[in-house]
Amino acid sequence: MEVITSLDNKLIKRLAKLKDKKYRDLEDIFLIETEHLIEEAYRCGMLEMVLVLENEDINLDVKKVYVTKNILNKLSSLNSNIKYIGIARKFIPKGYGNRLILLDNLQDPGNLGTIIRSAAAFNIDTIILGNNCVDLYNDKVIRASEGMIFHVDCLRKDLTSLIIELKNNNYMMIGTDVNEGKVLNTFKFPLKFAIIIGNEGNGISLEIKNLVDKNIYIPMNKKTESLNASIAASIIMYEMSKVDYD
Amino acid sequence: MEVITSLDNKLIKRLAKLKDKKYRDLEDIFLIETEHLIEEAYRCGMLEMVLVLENEDINLDVKKVYVTKNILNKLSSLNSNIKYIGIARKFIPKGYGNRLILLDNLQDPGNLGTIIRSAAAFNIDTIILGNNCVDLYNDKVIRASEGMIFHVDCLRKDLTSLIIELKNNNYMMIGTDVNEGKVLNTFKFPLKFAIIIGNEGNGISLEIKNLVDKNIYIPMNKKTESLNASIAASIIMYEMSKVDYD
Repeated sequence: MEVITSLDNKLIKRLAKLKDKKYRDLEDIFLIETEHLIEEAYRCGMLEMVLVLENEDINLDVKKVYVTKNILNKLSSLNSNIKYIGIARKFIPKGYGNRLILLDNLQDPGNLGTIIRSAAAFNIDTIILGNNCVDLYNDKVIRASEGMIFHVDCLRKDLTSLIIELKNNNYMMIGTDVNEGKVLNTFKFPLKFAIIIGNEGNGISLEIKNLVDKNIYIPMNKKTESLNASIAASIIMYEMSKVDYD
Repeated sequence: MEVITSLDNKLIKRLAKLKDKKYRDLEDIFLIETEHLIEEAYRCGMLEMVLVLENEDINLDVKKVYVTKNILNKLSSLNSNIKYIGIARKFIPKGYGNRLILLDNLQDPGNLGTIIRSAAAFNIDTIILGNNCVDLYNDKVIRASEGMIFHVDCLRKDLTSLIIELKNNNYMMIGTDVNEGKVLNTFKFPLKFAIIIGNEGNGISLEIKNLVDKNIYIPMNKKTESLNASIAASIIMYEMSKVDYD
């Protein structure tokens, strides 16, 4: 068994750069940690390679490169004793389905990962990130998604031009507003729609707000101004998906 | 205006220790950052003191101590340029209401903060943390709660003995289970109940599971095994609170 031991190894130096979004975008690959995520990537055919700690093994039919602890620690974003780091290929879907989530300037990686996880649970076809959203391949996004990033189609697009295209194709643009709109649980979702979720602090930007067709709101106690963005998104998706189980 | 400039100042050294749960427990006070949280604490009568950056001010009728930037940076858990740090008093409620959330070994501070925020929105009376949960006064919990930690009663208790007491007082213990139970949106919540939310990785512990009266589940796509704990908790609270708005 050949083991890479040097931090100066060409492959290791190339992989270390993937912590930086710029290099993830150039190479179209990204790092994943924890066995669970590596197995999910494998199942979805998106795993390119695994770095494995010397004297350990992983039972997956994929290219393996054995490395020292030192190297895993350099590449890892976790503090724990890890045995594997996977290299996954980005998947760029060719189109989008009928049930969309549009994210306008969502910034928190935990919120994005959680929305992806809920979108998989509640039968959303495609998540579309506006250009100003946090990077999809940020390690915190991937972890919070609990592997569902490999199961839900995600695209990055300019939202304004996309919304105009969607409206021309009879998609309903659904926004959230605490002051006006229809109560969520009486709202009838059409066949083709996009639920728009805004920034954590500022909500939906004015430009996008002007393109909304219908607003919905989640009834809540007056002492609270709002919910966490991933909670609001998940409650809306939960209500929407009820039609699939009724 | 007197300004504390030394990191060796007795008060500053005492406050620096509050980053550690042990000292928060000993003193029954905790640090809060961001103007929004300080104002929420003030409005709820829980603000003891504010450290203010020299040459700045804050318009609150509370004890102010002026300090240097150096001192704020030492006490802050954020990297940004802050002007204030508040010292808030813990509030230990005397009892609990009819609508309870019980948290069994919840570990992620972001999840706890988000559950507190949703509990305020959806009319939960009291949140009860089991002894093994993350600390309520962790800075990440307080930030994720968006100030709602000052609006929702929170208690820490031994869950097993509390549940026995609750059952003797006709509270229904409601668990979640993906394999059995009643679909959430057809479930009728009684007047007095406790929704039990388990650990992020392992769910509800076996000891507590044995004390559950009814299980509910949230219908979802078979490719997902579960939802994030704060998402599941919030969707259940959302459904429960509908009776208040119908």
